[in-house]
Amino acid sequence: MSADVRHMAHALSLGRRGMGKTWPNPAVGCVIVSDDRIVGRGWTGDGGRPHAETQALAMAGAAARGATAYVTLEPCAHHGQTPPCTEALIAAGIARVVAPVEDSDARVAGQGFAALRAAGIEVVTGVLAGEADADHAGFFMRVEQGRPRVTLKLATSFDGRIATATGESRWITGPEARAVVHGMRARHDAVLIGAGTARADDPSLTVRGWGEIRQPVRIVASRLLDVPLMSQLAQTAKDVPVWICHGPDAPHEMHRAWQGVGATLIGCPLSGRTLDARALLTKLGEQGLTRVFCEGGGSLAATLLSADLVDELVGFTAGIALGAEGQPSLGALGLDRLHEAPRFRLVETGAVGGDVMHRWLRGPEEG
Amino acid sequence: MSADVRHMAHALSLGRRGMGKTWPNPAVGCVIVSDDRIVGRGWTGDGGRPHAETQALAMAGAAARGATAYVTLEPCAHHGQTPPCTEALIAAGIARVVAPVEDSDARVAGQGFAALRAAGIEVVTGVLAGEADADHAGFFMRVEQGRPRVTLKLATSFDGRIATATGESRWITGPEARAVVHGMRARHDAVLIGAGTARADDPSLTVRGWGEIRQPVRIVASRLLDVPLMSQLAQTAKDVPVWICHGPDAPHEMHRAWQGVGATLIGCPLSGRTLDARALLTKLGEQGLTRVFCEGGGSLAATLLSADLVDELVGFTAGIALGAEGQPSLGALGLDRLHEAPRFRLVETGAVGGDVMHRWLRGPEEG
Repeated sequence: MSADVRHMAHALSLGRRGMGKTWPNPAVGCVIVSDDRIVGRGWTGDGGRPHAETQALAMAGAAARGATAYVTLEPCAHHGQTPPCTEALIAAGIARVVAPVEDSDARVAGQGFAALRAAGIEVVTGVLAGEADADHAGFFMRVEQGRPRVTLKLATSFDGRIATATGESRWITGPEARAVVHGMRARHDAVLIGAGTARADDPSLTVRGWGEIRQPVRIVASRLLDVPLMSQLAQTAKDVPVWICHGPDAPHEMHRAWQGVGATLIGCPLSGRTLDARALLTKLGEQGLTRVFCEGGGSLAATLLSADLVDELVGFTAGIALGAEGQPSLGALGLDRLHEAPRFRLVETGAVGGDVMHRWLRGPEEG
Repeated sequence: MSADVRHMAHALSLGRRGMGKTWPNPAVGCVIVSDDRIVGRGWTGDGGRPHAETQALAMAGAAARGATAYVTLEPCAHHGQTPPCTEALIAAGIARVVAPVEDSDARVAGQGFAALRAAGIEVVTGVLAGEADADHAGFFMRVEQGRPRVTLKLATSFDGRIATATGESRWITGPEARAVVHGMRARHDAVLIGAGTARADDPSLTVRGWGEIRQPVRIVASRLLDVPLMSQLAQTAKDVPVWICHGPDAPHEMHRAWQGVGATLIGCPLSGRTLDARALLTKLGEQGLTRVFCEGGGSLAATLLSADLVDELVGFTAGIALGAEGQPSLGALGLDRLHEAPRFRLVETGAVGGDVMHRWLRGPEEG
């Protein structure tokens, strides 16, 4: 492994620390290396500031002069809420910048690299570009398509059920799998569920067991705002943000009630009898979200899959059989033929406690 | 790893070559070692003869004198269709026998070890006993409970479906997973399906792609013998055995028709409106079967699970979503509460091609 690859892998791992906490900004990592010695490290702070480069340069101090900066995304060149990182890198005397990919944000898009080169800094791109693209996929998707990247999680019995006929679902998977799910929540900007799940399970949707962190926004898709005001979500909305995506026909008194408990209401258009999934995600993109973790239920999951809006699938399969009368993990997809079915390709699988975890990305197997 | 463990692992691997081909006998392996040099190897032949010890002794010849024999099951001491292996080991001058477990067959049950000791042979037991118990589980189950061990395989979509609403099921999993399934069939004495699957899929149920082997018996559970006589199973029943387990109310003309194509008919009692699963398996045990591989469909799988007759579950999960209108992998289990649901513990998981394979054994996680 070359030194550039090694240091970039380090910078990527630092960048991932910010995942789920930096929106609307990307979660960037930065390592400053002088004579193969690490003199500075940084990653994007909560809410997107300070930037990774700022942190790493501050740590490096005078040692940055003549050093190489490994940054997981093209440094910004525009004056936003912070001065551009390109200026800071130039001012610090950085001699060489290694960055995997261009920022697709129109305000950066190559101008960062151009500014660095104009100042006489050597710029190397393409190192671990695939990994960086994957890490920034949510940020890029919001910039390019206006919607956050969607991960759909389904924790099911061996036969694909998420609850018994009577709605009992605690617990199908084991404590290890549930702990992993909390970690996944923490690496997303928001957790999204349907109103049926909010009513049936009364979940809190917070991240527990991972220390003091910036909690993901908790979002419920509820056309009619018909989630109980005594629910855990409503009762804790002043502590951790709750957003409710509702339809134009939600009763006005429910608007007032949910605003009263501190929730943010986001009006969405309908598509048929349900909220329009693409419009809903676009609204979430407008709010700045880049990575959304959907935990069902079956109707919302089916709506997202049918609209081709699921970018990543995460399954947990437990060694329990619930039978055909159990509740399906996915609602109806309206498929006529097998070749029309949404396909995903396997990227990771393994045991988590006594359950099987499997992770898939949109699209068929690459040939 | 001690030499005893190493040689026993070798003997176990040889024994596994016979799995699915030696019924009603166990699939035994034998290694004869003289001065840490392997002088003989053998495994049970197709149909159960010759025995592993016979083969290994024949290969060893005079080198067996003073040597150690590693046998994966207590050598037989009774005169069956072949002379007892204990006599052969004694006659060959074997000085030491290492065997993991006693044979629970009442005709052996400690008498093999006793005969060897009486002849002055050192007998060591317990080496890799867990592995040997697992390998011989089907044989032991037939001897002790009168029924074969049952492996249930379910190949499903991400959401636990085995076909679209219109019955399309080819193919949900990929070619690698299907090849692994053929290997699993080959290691079982018989493949078992329900009549619905026989009608819907018209499968041949033979093992393909694994060379010339003793094919597993193909069994259909069909209360009314209502599988088409133009089906692949009926048309090839003269080449590879087809057994049909039917109810007392199957029409007589269907008896004659199926006997005419060469199938073996096995009458079973009913339990409610379906064949009694335990009685059916007992009938299969009486026929000599020790390991049965059930490939569904959902009704038969649910019947076996409800009766607590599934010893091993094998799942293949594909990266495809079929939705709630797809056909469930399991029929109704009639569960009221989650704690009543059948539980299995994970023993193996991994990617097979683009699918996830997971293997489970009956019973909850061991604490």
